[in-house]
Amino acid sequence: MKKAYVLFSGGKDSSLSALLLKKLGYEVELVTVNFGVLDSYRYAQETADILNIPHKVELLDREIIERSVEIILRDGYPARGIQYLHKMVIEILADKYKVIADGVRRDDRVPKLSHSEIQSIEMRKGIEYLNPLMGFGHKTIKYLVDRYFILSQGESDSVLKSDYEIEIRALIRAKGKDPRDYFPKHVQSRVIGLKRGDV
Amino acid sequence: MKKAYVLFSGGKDSSLSALLLKKLGYEVELVTVNFGVLDSYRYAQETADILNIPHKVELLDREIIERSVEIILRDGYPARGIQYLHKMVIEILADKYKVIADGVRRDDRVPKLSHSEIQSIEMRKGIEYLNPLMGFGHKTIKYLVDRYFILSQGESDSVLKSDYEIEIRALIRAKGKDPRDYFPKHVQSRVIGLKRGDV
Repeated sequence: MKKAYVLFSGGKDSSLSALLLKKLGYEVELVTVNFGVLDSYRYAQETADILNIPHKVELLDREIIERSVEIILRDGYPARGIQYLHKMVIEILADKYKVIADGVRRDDRVPKLSHSEIQSIEMRKGIEYLNPLMGFGHKTIKYLVDRYFILSQGESDSVLKSDYEIEIRALIRAKGKDPRDYFPKHVQSRVIGLKRGDV
Repeated sequence: MKKAYVLFSGGKDSSLSALLLKKLGYEVELVTVNFGVLDSYRYAQETADILNIPHKVELLDREIIERSVEIILRDGYPARGIQYLHKMVIEILADKYKVIADGVRRDDRVPKLSHSEIQSIEMRKGIEYLNPLMGFGHKTIKYLVDRYFILSQGESDSVLKSDYEIEIRALIRAKGKDPRDYFPKHVQSRVIGLKRGDV
């Protein structure tokens, strides 16, 4: 049985990706990336306990997220900075793990690696990079999430998640800026319970 | 529980798509499209029995595949004609089924609908169009197929499948041409057994 490492924020998409891979017979370990800005990995740990899937934190170099924040502050919007960060994270983890998955969805714009970027990293690093939700649209994912998970939902500055955004927002605030000037309002969700027994 | 209709050729990709959706809790029915050129749907029926998933044949207008063959003969290669055919099939089935899936993979070039084509058909027809394998590369799909299925593999003119190609080849031959002048050599596979109990 292969082991898949799923990039995990505690949100619905990374949770659904992990569930799907487990159902396909993978041994799954959840991996939350943290840059030492906040101890925000705690939220993902709690959700991992609920899902009853092993979880680890990968502490990565703070310089990477600092660079991401520079891009966001210069651009005035988060897309390119988030994209840069996600790509760096996958490049780094690809040196350590043979099968890496994330919760990127068909209708996401960022972060999303292009087909040639994916083929490049798979070939250069000899890994498999999986996007289990890439073939599903919003409506389908909503149906599947509703089927399996109980969510806590709210504005992105109120829901406690372990994603890139929470540490990026903290760094933006530390620079005396208001993250709300850079991130458009959007709803975040975190998995707080399971509807049907074990994952 | 939602019901998903999976376009089914009896091959490994459509079989794996069906298995994945079953594991996610969908009620699955397999649908083999046929244009009245050959009774090639029989092969898919046999594989559906092996998978123990309900199966039906959708007999579509022969004009659609005739048009596809015209495109292929004019182009000298099958890509555009196959793409035209697959898109027409999804458009037609979308008037009948609310959740349609196929076995299109991340590394396939054709048939593959673009993101805007997918969003257009989902919105116009009020359906969900799923590509369960879209987030998986060759290596990952090979691993999953090996995990679940026993295959019969061979050159595309020797393996008996219920895909578009088998009827297209018959029509090309009926026009006095040699399909091998249009289709590059490639390996086809059909699922002939299950490795681990029930799907």
